[in-house]
Amino acid sequence: MEIYLDNGATTRPFEVVIEEMCKVFREDYGNPSSLHKKGFEAEKYIINSKEIFSKILKVNQKEIYFTSGGTESNNLAILGVANAYKRSGKHIITTAIEHSSVKNTINYLGDNDYEITVLPVDSNGLIDLEQLRDSIREDTILVSIMHVNNEISTIMPIEEIGKVIKEKNKNTIFHVDAIQSFGKLNIYPKKWNIDLVSISGHKFHAPKGVGVIYINDNIKINPIIYGGYQQNGIRSGTENVPGIAAIGLAAKMMYDNLDSNVEHLYELKRHLAGRIMNEITDTVINGIDVDKGAPHILSIRFNKVRGEVLLHSLEEKDIFVSTGSACSSNKPSKLGPLQGIGLNNEEALSTVRFSFCINNTIEELDKCVDELKNIVPLLRKFVRH
Amino acid sequence: MEIYLDNGATTRPFEVVIEEMCKVFREDYGNPSSLHKKGFEAEKYIINSKEIFSKILKVNQKEIYFTSGGTESNNLAILGVANAYKRSGKHIITTAIEHSSVKNTINYLGDNDYEITVLPVDSNGLIDLEQLRDSIREDTILVSIMHVNNEISTIMPIEEIGKVIKEKNKNTIFHVDAIQSFGKLNIYPKKWNIDLVSISGHKFHAPKGVGVIYINDNIKINPIIYGGYQQNGIRSGTENVPGIAAIGLAAKMMYDNLDSNVEHLYELKRHLAGRIMNEITDTVINGIDVDKGAPHILSIRFNKVRGEVLLHSLEEKDIFVSTGSACSSNKPSKLGPLQGIGLNNEEALSTVRFSFCINNTIEELDKCVDELKNIVPLLRKFVRH
Repeated sequence: MEIYLDNGATTRPFEVVIEEMCKVFREDYGNPSSLHKKGFEAEKYIINSKEIFSKILKVNQKEIYFTSGGTESNNLAILGVANAYKRSGKHIITTAIEHSSVKNTINYLGDNDYEITVLPVDSNGLIDLEQLRDSIREDTILVSIMHVNNEISTIMPIEEIGKVIKEKNKNTIFHVDAIQSFGKLNIYPKKWNIDLVSISGHKFHAPKGVGVIYINDNIKINPIIYGGYQQNGIRSGTENVPGIAAIGLAAKMMYDNLDSNVEHLYELKRHLAGRIMNEITDTVINGIDVDKGAPHILSIRFNKVRGEVLLHSLEEKDIFVSTGSACSSNKPSKLGPLQGIGLNNEEALSTVRFSFCINNTIEELDKCVDELKNIVPLLRKFVRH
Repeated sequence: MEIYLDNGATTRPFEVVIEEMCKVFREDYGNPSSLHKKGFEAEKYIINSKEIFSKILKVNQKEIYFTSGGTESNNLAILGVANAYKRSGKHIITTAIEHSSVKNTINYLGDNDYEITVLPVDSNGLIDLEQLRDSIREDTILVSIMHVNNEISTIMPIEEIGKVIKEKNKNTIFHVDAIQSFGKLNIYPKKWNIDLVSISGHKFHAPKGVGVIYINDNIKINPIIYGGYQQNGIRSGTENVPGIAAIGLAAKMMYDNLDSNVEHLYELKRHLAGRIMNEITDTVINGIDVDKGAPHILSIRFNKVRGEVLLHSLEEKDIFVSTGSACSSNKPSKLGPLQGIGLNNEEALSTVRFSFCINNTIEELDKCVDELKNIVPLLRKFVRH
């Protein structure tokens, strides 16, 4: 029986979500742009999904757009604003621990005439709000800050950040990468002064290949993909109807039971953290306190063990975890969030990330701890570090 | 029993393709970038799908990339080359009857300092090869020409076009939008001097939300989406594994039986064209001869009838067709392929497109003709045109 504790990388789609997609594949396969009822039936899924997101985020339906995933949403937000506002300014602010789909998109702009300010974070992964305030200038067109960090679970104080930004420069646009938070935390763009929110389906039991972006109707944004003018021209291309149906349904399921889901996730996180800390020597929780970080991510370093070796040892027991984030784990990044909060390379390389979903159980975690208790001492004893 | 004759807009996924996706959703849902075997199992689908496309196109596996669909493939081809080669030149050539995802992407470049040459087409929808040759200059970085026109079924002589381009300027890059041809016609990039080929899954019984682009390994291309450096950095973002598995399987099914599939499609096309021409007065086939156009698209005008009214009348009988292309039918384009081949607005507006898939039957078409024989005279008699 496999124990999947890598839900920060991707999740298994909910069974009802799979069934919904199958219904679209088999019956409602029309092109939403078609004028006949096969088109109209397909379009209904899009309208329905927009309604779900607009209710969860408390925004207007016309402010919801669908993309191919979180990476595209982040790119559209950043490149779309940079392009639309280049005459207003070319200064962009971000943090040192953003996901590569934000970091590398902003770096691309940095190579093309934009000026980038990268805010450092403290040992908890938090930025200094005064430093943020000081960084915002007349020509700051965009601030892009993630809601939850995918590796160290830090929850950025987005509402306070939004206040600081708009107090300093009401024209500065605020983008929040909510890819790791959506489905686990509430996020209210209107109340929190957020202009753009990126969401990825496969992080909360919808399939890969679909994402959402909230775009405040009062801001301008240029498309990054041109074509048949679907979605108001903001994102051309035949809509991924089954994916859009799926991401709406999965979102609804996450938020219909948000409180109990989150409670369960914290219970899992506390349980695993507690047992590892108590029962395995020389282990350290990276970053912020267990209860202050996001409920589904736990980053732990096992000193004198290589995280990657531990990952593969657990894999042999059908337990799946991650070292850094999956999105960059193919090529160990030199400057990820672990280094951002002050870890040296040795510490970063001895880190394992456990990430949970609502279907994980205490029993699974107990099995995981039991294996860790066998494996870690063996690795410390026999594997050259 | 519904009769779906709008397969140029989108197709119903094959049942085995749906089952393959369900397997990925349920069992192989890992992130291909993950270091453990859930990641490895997911990655296998990508490798397998690349192998399928490389065999069909007779290219290298590393020249196959996956996107979110045909529109993104066309955007990546055009914007990616324009950006990578801007120092070599800013002249781009295309035709008057391209799909909006090519046309509007090139128009965007035209608004941003690139010079665009739009080649007209004759009444068959074909360009003049000598005019093409004359248009190619030292600074022509890209020629983008579709393989099969989605509205009028013209098959462009891609092999000859490739020859003309490379004879005139071996550095000019040749992009072919094969979205309507892939699955119905062979296309050989290496032999035909094509550098970029765009493919869309939902046009041949894979789902919406996934596409392919072939990129000649010898050319440069800049990404349009930045992030975790998946797919060699050409297309960042967690790969849509179920979609990629699906598009590979659907492609294999189309090409494993290509000859018999195409024969069946031509049989359908000939049958419907013949019966309509013989049995309904005042009808005209738009564009090229039935046997010379693509096997799955038939464009017919019913004089003194509004195509859109006919579409809705057929819809009431559960028969689904299209007027122009679905991708632009939300907003009637003033300058589509029908106008490109010389139709006036009156003629264009009386046009209906029938588009077939291999699961359509002669019986379905007979039912369609029977309905047309009832509806068309009634519309001519009672509906103000």
